[in-house]
Amino acid sequence: MPPPRVRNDWDVIPSPLAQNTHNPIREIVENLHLEPNSDKPMIALSIGDPTVFGNLGPPPEAVRAVADALEAGRCHGYAPATGHEAARAAVARYVLPPVAGRDVVLCSGCSGALDMALAALAGPGRHVLVPCPGFPLYRTLLEGLGAVARPYELRPERGWEADLEDLARKMDADCAALVVCNPSNPCGSVMSRAHLRALLRLAAARRVPIIADEVYERMSFARPFNSLAALSRDVPVLACGGLAKRFLAPGWRVGWVIMHDRGDVLERAGVRAALQRLAQRTLGCTSLVQAALPAILGADHSKFFQDTLDTLQRHACAAHAALSVVPGLAPVMPQGAMYMMVGVSLERFPALRSERHFVERLVAEESVFLLPGQCFDYPSYVRLVLTAPEDMLLEACARIAAFCTRYYLLKSCDDTEEEAQARAEA
Amino acid sequence: MPPPRVRNDWDVIPSPLAQNTHNPIREIVENLHLEPNSDKPMIALSIGDPTVFGNLGPPPEAVRAVADALEAGRCHGYAPATGHEAARAAVARYVLPPVAGRDVVLCSGCSGALDMALAALAGPGRHVLVPCPGFPLYRTLLEGLGAVARPYELRPERGWEADLEDLARKMDADCAALVVCNPSNPCGSVMSRAHLRALLRLAAARRVPIIADEVYERMSFARPFNSLAALSRDVPVLACGGLAKRFLAPGWRVGWVIMHDRGDVLERAGVRAALQRLAQRTLGCTSLVQAALPAILGADHSKFFQDTLDTLQRHACAAHAALSVVPGLAPVMPQGAMYMMVGVSLERFPALRSERHFVERLVAEESVFLLPGQCFDYPSYVRLVLTAPEDMLLEACARIAAFCTRYYLLKSCDDTEEEAQARAEA
Repeated sequence: MPPPRVRNDWDVIPSPLAQNTHNPIREIVENLHLEPNSDKPMIALSIGDPTVFGNLGPPPEAVRAVADALEAGRCHGYAPATGHEAARAAVARYVLPPVAGRDVVLCSGCSGALDMALAALAGPGRHVLVPCPGFPLYRTLLEGLGAVARPYELRPERGWEADLEDLARKMDADCAALVVCNPSNPCGSVMSRAHLRALLRLAAARRVPIIADEVYERMSFARPFNSLAALSRDVPVLACGGLAKRFLAPGWRVGWVIMHDRGDVLERAGVRAALQRLAQRTLGCTSLVQAALPAILGADHSKFFQDTLDTLQRHACAAHAALSVVPGLAPVMPQGAMYMMVGVSLERFPALRSERHFVERLVAEESVFLLPGQCFDYPSYVRLVLTAPEDMLLEACARIAAFCTRYYLLKSCDDTEEEAQARAEA
Repeated sequence: MPPPRVRNDWDVIPSPLAQNTHNPIREIVENLHLEPNSDKPMIALSIGDPTVFGNLGPPPEAVRAVADALEAGRCHGYAPATGHEAARAAVARYVLPPVAGRDVVLCSGCSGALDMALAALAGPGRHVLVPCPGFPLYRTLLEGLGAVARPYELRPERGWEADLEDLARKMDADCAALVVCNPSNPCGSVMSRAHLRALLRLAAARRVPIIADEVYERMSFARPFNSLAALSRDVPVLACGGLAKRFLAPGWRVGWVIMHDRGDVLERAGVRAALQRLAQRTLGCTSLVQAALPAILGADHSKFFQDTLDTLQRHACAAHAALSVVPGLAPVMPQGAMYMMVGVSLERFPALRSERHFVERLVAEESVFLLPGQCFDYPSYVRLVLTAPEDMLLEACARIAAFCTRYYLLKSCDDTEEEAQARAEA
């Protein structure tokens, strides 16, 4: 046998999965010029983590359930790939509509659930319809899989409903799935039952299954929440959820994919088997919380949930009231989740070149950080997180108002020459 | 614009990742005919989970550290994608050789770490050398990535050292990485420093980076453990580890990839960036344990570790002594980890058609379950887990001895006609 062909130098090449995975939020934020005004304490209304300010956190009963599981010591061993039977059964009873335990796959957080749901339905050569504005992780995950994320338009003037004509045009034979995020990140909108039914009719007519990102399920304060799968008898739905938002415990990394099959479409296509195989790659969700899930999901948290919603609604109303009188801004009142999108009429701020520039100057002068709409594929808006304590939120709104008033119709930016030059060179 | 081409039927296709992911252990075990003898309580020495029997579990200090973190309430929010800085720093100090915190990526278990390390180095068109016998997850993960797992031979007669000639033949220009599992699952072997140096010399000559699966690091009772990265100044190593084995907490899902770069090879190839991007897909490790990691890894567990090793060594010696006198069996004495491989001389058991048949009849007659070597790409061996309580382990060995004595040189199987027929039809 001849000696093998060998190489003389290191030739290390990361996989396409690694090379094609891009997180736009991180890339955009890392390239922003962010230097707060040292005279004002920083207020970051950018991160969708309700626990960062210390005012919100998981229900004490849920924390106690994990502590109890830890003390009982039945949470140290491996769980089956798709989760412990008791934990899956608890999730199956909790979700809307309820399912059988075998229709539940536990995952490492809702992002793990989305990763599995997308990989179970979409591969190279196909596209998945994702909302615009929308959570950028869909695109990140799809590009890693070699599939295409194709944005469909949500309309702010219709409370962020999807543009059905636009959607119908894009829902072609290469469309592997439609992603619906409801309640919406970043919009804070909650879709009406009628609009959800319209989406389902379209999906049924075009034979396109739905991935329902319902990680904010039941987090609606201005309109009832409807789960997509509860409204359809013919469209198969993979619903993704977890403890991150409603239970205010994103760091626990507990998520789930729910298989709401219809007419055996998913079963016949091998989606159940695909989910199980994907779950076997790395196992998902820590046994520490799995052991506590029956207690967590079985307890009555209605007061806790109501308190959270009251807080979010109060904050949304206060921030909306404060910003809707600011010249050049157009906040869109949210109905749920924990965000508000604010339109920035850039033509009224001629000194600011883009919504990114708006965000950079706001940090530099007022130490308030909002995510630029570019992170959600939606320039000319900024996203504001509503979970901060009310006084902090109102202080931020006051600083935003001062900033906008200062820049309204102002012809040239008041930044120093060095800064302008540094940006020109970058 | 013409209306889009649409389809008239559901056309759901899981991604290649989902379709190409196969877990051989599950597939083999699910196809075994396993019906225990109802007269004898089942003893399953098949699962590599040290906690299932109730005799082994994590150090009380580690459990208390998680309870403390839970009570302090600083463990509910998102961690950065690669982990909290304090947790990464704690791992960086713990591993051998120590690294900087930036060289640590926290993952969902060691299988999550292997998934990331393989995806960071290997893609379609390339192969990765994996040990034979070996842990089947390497192949599972690589096939999902579109890469090829190419087995290299370990030699039982040399204490499961790699066959260096075989390895050299296979380490060609298409080789993306060499996986070394030390201490070894399923062999229970611990490689000598000289052998590790030989592997490193070969990898250096051929310019092939190493993935060191060191999830059993320092779990060696009959020979000192050496970390691969500590022995090399020129071969880049991605080392994978976690709390699963030495800390006896597999269900916590805490793993890590350590980047031991050499000559900036990994940095220049973009492997650090690849690991960071992969970590952003779904985030990894629960904050519940991340918050406790500095306390867990900073405490002195030397008595706990020594007790575990003493138990494993006592069990290994007892099981080896019991099985080495059994006709037709050739147990290979382990030096670490928590397994023993046992050769089955099938020509001495003419009534048994394969090591699978051996395993099936052993369950049917003696209610003892061992994993067939086929699960590790190594027929004619069976793997025995050493973590069961000693009396249970010895009872299992006694039943195996009775079974083998009964079948030794026996011409035909004593199973019922129905069973034989059912198998023939299957």
